[in-house]
Amino acid sequence: MTTDTGRERQRDAAGQLRHLLTLEGLTREEIVRLLDQAQGYVRRPGELPARDASLAGRTVANLFFEPSTRTRVSFELAAGRLGADVVNLEMLSSSRIKGESVLDTIYTLQAMAVDVFVLRDAEPGLPAYIARHVAPHVSVLNAGEAHLSHPTQGLLDALTIRQRLGDTAQLTVAVVGDVRHSRVARSAWQALATLGVGEFRIVGPPELMPDDGEFRGARRCPILAQGLEGADVVMALRIQRERMAEARIPDAHTYCREFGITTESLKLARPGALVMHPGPMNRGVEISGEAADGPQSAIQQQVANGVAVRMAVLATIVRHSQAQTPPATTGRTVG
Amino acid sequence: MTTDTGRERQRDAAGQLRHLLTLEGLTREEIVRLLDQAQGYVRRPGELPARDASLAGRTVANLFFEPSTRTRVSFELAAGRLGADVVNLEMLSSSRIKGESVLDTIYTLQAMAVDVFVLRDAEPGLPAYIARHVAPHVSVLNAGEAHLSHPTQGLLDALTIRQRLGDTAQLTVAVVGDVRHSRVARSAWQALATLGVGEFRIVGPPELMPDDGEFRGARRCPILAQGLEGADVVMALRIQRERMAEARIPDAHTYCREFGITTESLKLARPGALVMHPGPMNRGVEISGEAADGPQSAIQQQVANGVAVRMAVLATIVRHSQAQTPPATTGRTVG
Amino acid sequence: MTTDTGRERQRDAAGQLRHLLTLEGLTREEIVRLLDQAQGYVRRPGELPARDASLAGRTVANLFFEPSTRTRVSFELAAGRLGADVVNLEMLSSSRIKGESVLDTIYTLQAMAVDVFVLRDAEPGLPAYIARHVAPHVSVLNAGEAHLSHPTQGLLDALTIRQRLGDTAQLTVAVVGDVRHSRVARSAWQALATLGVGEFRIVGPPELMPDDGEFRGARRCPILAQGLEGADVVMALRIQRERMAEARIPDAHTYCREFGITTESLKLARPGALVMHPGPMNRGVEISGEAADGPQSAIQQQVANGVAVRMAVLATIVRHSQAQTPPATTGRTVG
Repeated sequence: MTTDTGRERQRDAAGQLRHLLTLEGLTREEIVRLLDQAQGYVRRPGELPARDASLAGRTVANLFFEPSTRTRVSFELAAGRLGADVVNLEMLSSSRIKGESVLDTIYTLQAMAVDVFVLRDAEPGLPAYIARHVAPHVSVLNAGEAHLSHPTQGLLDALTIRQRLGDTAQLTVAVVGDVRHSRVARSAWQALATLGVGEFRIVGPPELMPDDGEFRGARRCPILAQGLEGADVVMALRIQRERMAEARIPDAHTYCREFGITTESLKLARPGALVMHPGPMNRGVEISGEAADGPQSAIQQQVANGVAVRMAVLATIVRHSQAQTPPATTGRTVG
Repeated sequence: MTTDTGRERQRDAAGQLRHLLTLEGLTREEIVRLLDQAQGYVRRPGELPARDASLAGRTVANLFFEPSTRTRVSFELAAGRLGADVVNLEMLSSSRIKGESVLDTIYTLQAMAVDVFVLRDAEPGLPAYIARHVAPHVSVLNAGEAHLSHPTQGLLDALTIRQRLGDTAQLTVAVVGDVRHSRVARSAWQALATLGVGEFRIVGPPELMPDDGEFRGARRCPILAQGLEGADVVMALRIQRERMAEARIPDAHTYCREFGITTESLKLARPGALVMHPGPMNRGVEISGEAADGPQSAIQQQVANGVAVRMAVLATIVRHSQAQTPPATTGRTVG
Repeated sequence: MTTDTGRERQRDAAGQLRHLLTLEGLTREEIVRLLDQAQGYVRRPGELPARDASLAGRTVANLFFEPSTRTRVSFELAAGRLGADVVNLEMLSSSRIKGESVLDTIYTLQAMAVDVFVLRDAEPGLPAYIARHVAPHVSVLNAGEAHLSHPTQGLLDALTIRQRLGDTAQLTVAVVGDVRHSRVARSAWQALATLGVGEFRIVGPPELMPDDGEFRGARRCPILAQGLEGADVVMALRIQRERMAEARIPDAHTYCREFGITTESLKLARPGALVMHPGPMNRGVEISGEAADGPQSAIQQQVANGVAVRMAVLATIVRHSQAQTPPATTGRTVG
């Protein structure tokens, strides 16, 4: 299994989006179209959520090789609100299973008429590997892949910024923390680089910076003050304890003082700068409770947009696969 | 997190029931209205279950911090039969998570348009704590909280007694066993004290009696014969092995002899007295198989009523929250 | 709990199929009718799956005492595509619970208006035991019982053979591997013996052959070449490592050489012979990847047929139970 990101294989022969494996290689028009469609699914808090029948008669399988209840529920609700049947499969880590076995599971579910596989895995390579092998009418949706890619997260981050600050072309966006191991940072970068962004900064200790070949065009800031200065958007990344050790940061308290997003450190950014976090948060570590819950925070809006974005992506890739279905016999006894 | 029972906060500004956290403080009229509505959802065994669209377009999340498959399924079926989307989340014990983290999970699900949180927890305080923090259109339903409260159980017990014996005002009800640690006993007491009951007896070893300040007006019986004499309703409580030790009862056999509900001990009660148990039963300990399965047993009727009561409660608290929804934009593209 | 296969108790007083516990004792007409009905639910790959409202308003509970995600999903999708509500319960092994406890769980779910119990268990006896105790309108569906019975697997195997090769009366069918411990082999034998088959061969090491009283009329072949010669259908069975030891086969490689279905060993069978496997496969052990994925393989067709067969069985046994429902009150407030 190589770490093929799937960039070259997420379109069908006609160039239409069939899988969503990565935001790499998507055009500005494709991303804008997905964001516009997601915006149509957004409702205000307290309103009934949007629903339509885009996936009526379809079956979506959530295969999470890395557990994540909140992301699973977001995909489950997105598919259900489009009328799909949803099955959840909790899998052992794919690294403990031979690739061939995972493929047998996929083939089995495909034979049961699963139309979309939503995959999450701590190892790289699985989404593109599966996409190479499924039948032409089946789609793969990457719900988080190692440190590499989390495309619906990148889209929901772009949508949230667009809703709050409008066009991204002049904005300064600072992503703070363990960028090196972050699929969230990579997908945000891919979305914003394609949409156009004033300045994209990656901020964190040198040990947690990505390799030089990555994030080309982004500005690297090893010091928080530098990273936040004048920023319109500040995105804190979840930090794991073992990564602090890599960065020779002794404890959470020190991390918070050096790279934490707090009401204090936010004063370095542009007044009213947007505060974002992909969740789940380590409050008091990479972000303070006050910053997370304050008026600048867009964190719950990100979550709400997550469902809308996943609905838009599902409707887009499945609309496509519908065209592949032999029309004569479809729906023979289908209600 | 205090052990606020939520009594004061389960109504909205207009005094309507918005959450169901406890039966404490509910009026007789409110309880009767819920029982009447539940009765409307009752069907005979073998009939198709009642269904309506009270929760169409709504989303219910079951968050069980204390595992209970049967109660989870009861709530899942109740919500589904009202047309809701249901998501199940198995949680680690809330005592191992900081309150703030639980709240982040709640906020995340709320942002995904979850309308009702069904919560079960071995620790006290979570339902009221969550109810204090959710948005105005969101409801909390307590599905079992420590030793304190299990309001839908209290309602289903009252409904079962009413179905079998009519008005409760003249009845003698005996609750037998570990009353001290029982949320079932407390919620039954709250329901029946409010509806009116002839005599409410708590029966069990002194070590498992509640503190004096609790169950005011109930009669305390340390000896089974005394507790059962002339009783119209006999409710056995599940006993845990560690509680027997607290009560210096050496083993299950002895417990059964001293406090077990059996065809023998039932002879002490009124002929035909109703036998109840909240389940799951330890057969041969707090109740004999013969008593559980005999003609006086209402145990399966309790389970059936459980679904009906949960439907009534969901329809009541969500009907309320619907009024909170901004009407102009609701249902824009909602099917 | 005896190992009653339930053969005598799966019909109601009128002789109609009410449970499906075993294929033993089913008539040829009953099996053909189920296969015909299943065929009506088959769709081509890429088509939308069949759907109807046979189980609208009904509730199906999947109780898997032995974990099997793929079989659970197959039943979950089958029931859902017929309009049923489905609840999944992961159970501890039934052997660790007293029979009485399992029955209490069943009675509880039955009181919640569960109409069908889909049961899987590593121990023998549970499906017939439960069938003896449920209410008259409730059905039990055996989804895999010890080494004894897996009736929907036997039906899907027969359907697959019929689709690919037509009438089974003249066919030679070879089942290869650990027949002794295989419910798949037993149910396939029961289906094909009843439908009529040219020759049924059981092939494997003597230690893994069933007792003489079983598979009466089947030909026993201790050597693969003998078993495969001229076979129209070759069904490989999953082999467990501990069974190889029983058969004094030192390792997987040796097993594959002696009893593995490979492009090499398939040359012994009739040209174009059908290759089948119940899944999940140990590739490189009882079957080679080339044989599993080659043009002769019907393995994915078996999986697809599994959903269709389960739909047919559910619609058959629940159609029956509907007639038991008191007609006057059914659907009073049912949408």
